[in-house]
Amino acid sequence: MSRRYAILAPGHFASDAKTAHGVIAYSRDATVAVIDPACAGMRVRDAVAYLRSDAPIVGSVREALTFAPTALLIGTAPKGGALPAEWRAEILAAIAAGLEIVSGLHDMLGDDAEFAAAAAARGVRIWDVRKPPQTPIFSGEAYRVAAPTVLFVGNDCAVGKMTVALELAHAAERAGKRAAFVPTGQTGIMIAGWGTAIDRTIADFAPGATEALVLQAAREEPDVIFVEGQGAINHPAYAPVTLALMYGAAPDALVLVCDPTRAHIESYATPTLGYRELIRTHEALLATVKPARVVGIALNTRKLDEAGARHAIAQAREQTHLPADDVVRFGADALYAAIAPELRKGSPCVASSL
Amino acid sequence: MSRRYAILAPGHFASDAKTAHGVIAYSRDATVAVIDPACAGMRVRDAVAYLRSDAPIVGSVREALTFAPTALLIGTAPKGGALPAEWRAEILAAIAAGLEIVSGLHDMLGDDAEFAAAAAARGVRIWDVRKPPQTPIFSGEAYRVAAPTVLFVGNDCAVGKMTVALELAHAAERAGKRAAFVPTGQTGIMIAGWGTAIDRTIADFAPGATEALVLQAAREEPDVIFVEGQGAINHPAYAPVTLALMYGAAPDALVLVCDPTRAHIESYATPTLGYRELIRTHEALLATVKPARVVGIALNTRKLDEAGARHAIAQAREQTHLPADDVVRFGADALYAAIAPELRKGSPCVASSL
Repeated sequence: MSRRYAILAPGHFASDAKTAHGVIAYSRDATVAVIDPACAGMRVRDAVAYLRSDAPIVGSVREALTFAPTALLIGTAPKGGALPAEWRAEILAAIAAGLEIVSGLHDMLGDDAEFAAAAAARGVRIWDVRKPPQTPIFSGEAYRVAAPTVLFVGNDCAVGKMTVALELAHAAERAGKRAAFVPTGQTGIMIAGWGTAIDRTIADFAPGATEALVLQAAREEPDVIFVEGQGAINHPAYAPVTLALMYGAAPDALVLVCDPTRAHIESYATPTLGYRELIRTHEALLATVKPARVVGIALNTRKLDEAGARHAIAQAREQTHLPADDVVRFGADALYAAIAPELRKGSPCVASSL
Repeated sequence: MSRRYAILAPGHFASDAKTAHGVIAYSRDATVAVIDPACAGMRVRDAVAYLRSDAPIVGSVREALTFAPTALLIGTAPKGGALPAEWRAEILAAIAAGLEIVSGLHDMLGDDAEFAAAAAARGVRIWDVRKPPQTPIFSGEAYRVAAPTVLFVGNDCAVGKMTVALELAHAAERAGKRAAFVPTGQTGIMIAGWGTAIDRTIADFAPGATEALVLQAAREEPDVIFVEGQGAINHPAYAPVTLALMYGAAPDALVLVCDPTRAHIESYATPTLGYRELIRTHEALLATVKPARVVGIALNTRKLDEAGARHAIAQAREQTHLPADDVVRFGADALYAAIAPELRKGSPCVASSL
């Protein structure tokens, strides 16, 4: 059954509510209201220009109830994932009104005594999408998946890796292929209705949890598998998750997703890497386990005007001799067509003395 | 208060009981008996030649009680960390006898209803050394630690990274320096009495948990900090933990620990990397966040005779132009003296446009 979401993003909706934006843009579930006192009275499309939704923005859960939501979605994931104290009352109000609670925060709302008791009393489900399943150690079974697997990597967090994976999956479907999207983070999970938040798994099991997702996607016998990426290979905090996806998904090809205006890793002084250094770093690491090449570059040119975007795309092509485009701004069909011939199965490295 | 350990390692003591061997070799706590029916009747030094201990090996916890242990240590960590079912009775027998239980397994014995109830009834403590503390996201505070920090990396798991770190720390102390050893895995924690099993932390928090350990060690104002390494950078399952240590410890120098006879990653077909490829891979990754160089190579030549060991060491020196030695076989003073001049503070990369 489909949900009708009220999305809680107080103070964040117009700026950095990545989960809210992703669900509004790509989920099959409808968003009927957004809760953010900072832009109450506006519609979604007025606050965030690229979201084509007329849903109202209101100041509280109480006001959102007018629009008959069936679930409250926590629409932004603060750094570290902890729940801001001032949101508790709003979540309790939603539980009291009988809404399902859908959260991608690190702190499991279902493990919170007050929320758990309130939800149990009201017969309401709390879906902590980040809660990892029991997962095995990486086994290498992913090496035997039939479909070419594409992993999305990038120059930072929050540059659009999930969006590009979804857009290319849609483009592949339009081209007559059966494309699987593998969700590895909270927003992707909310959009697709399954998946594992790899950042929340135990470090030893993170590649195994990724492998399990690819194997699950492979059971539907798709023609191509697109794995949502996370973090960045030189992100001081999140690179281990990036590497877990690189080894655990056992990709046959990579697509590089970059915001060309990003000079340093978000919240850190660490410089972002240029295209060639990104390509070299990812390909060199994968060459030690299972080789895969970067086959295309997807730019996020949201902060540039159209001339600036075209210039950035031309520059990426010149520097790398790879297909490059902004799939949100100019559509994903051209980039998909350019990379499709490069999507072939590869093999892992094997020690000669075995 | 110091412990008197009985170490449980049924069927594994003579072969791969890495935790048991490490604790016997390096802990300040005494091992009074080992439990392994496969070599019951022998002494420790008869079963494992390089361990200089006369402790008896017996067939059961009941027999071990003769030697007045105060704690039962689970002395081997099976792949994946799960508790073999047949050990339950032995652990319950130890609890019934009033022994503290010390475990480095992934499965938390304290969370097991039967063990928890038995321990509570008998007033016995269960110390799950792998249980991670609440940890923050990596902050960059490690960049401001005054002492040079050395991280141990290697060509595979279980090649002796912890041993080399401990031996070089002892050599530094002999040379008049205050050396801190930072434990990042269950055996290191059991030996040092503090630390965090980074492999058991949540992937997003693994670098932050590593940083917290380095900051804790720095509070004692040591002259040099040696951080125990984990996994290998091309290990299909454990590389994310390796990378978490590389970025989270913010090392100023690396020491490479290799078993030169290891052709592939243990339990996988993935080929191990040669010295130059290992150096290039680690240095290239660290150059994207905080540059650090490999300053020396410690070989584990246990599987070679003395001529073979000397040949392997000469080969490592020729291929890399770096100091190389086997610190267990030939002592750690020479390698420490060779690398000491290279232990200087470095700085992280900073984006020029900040």
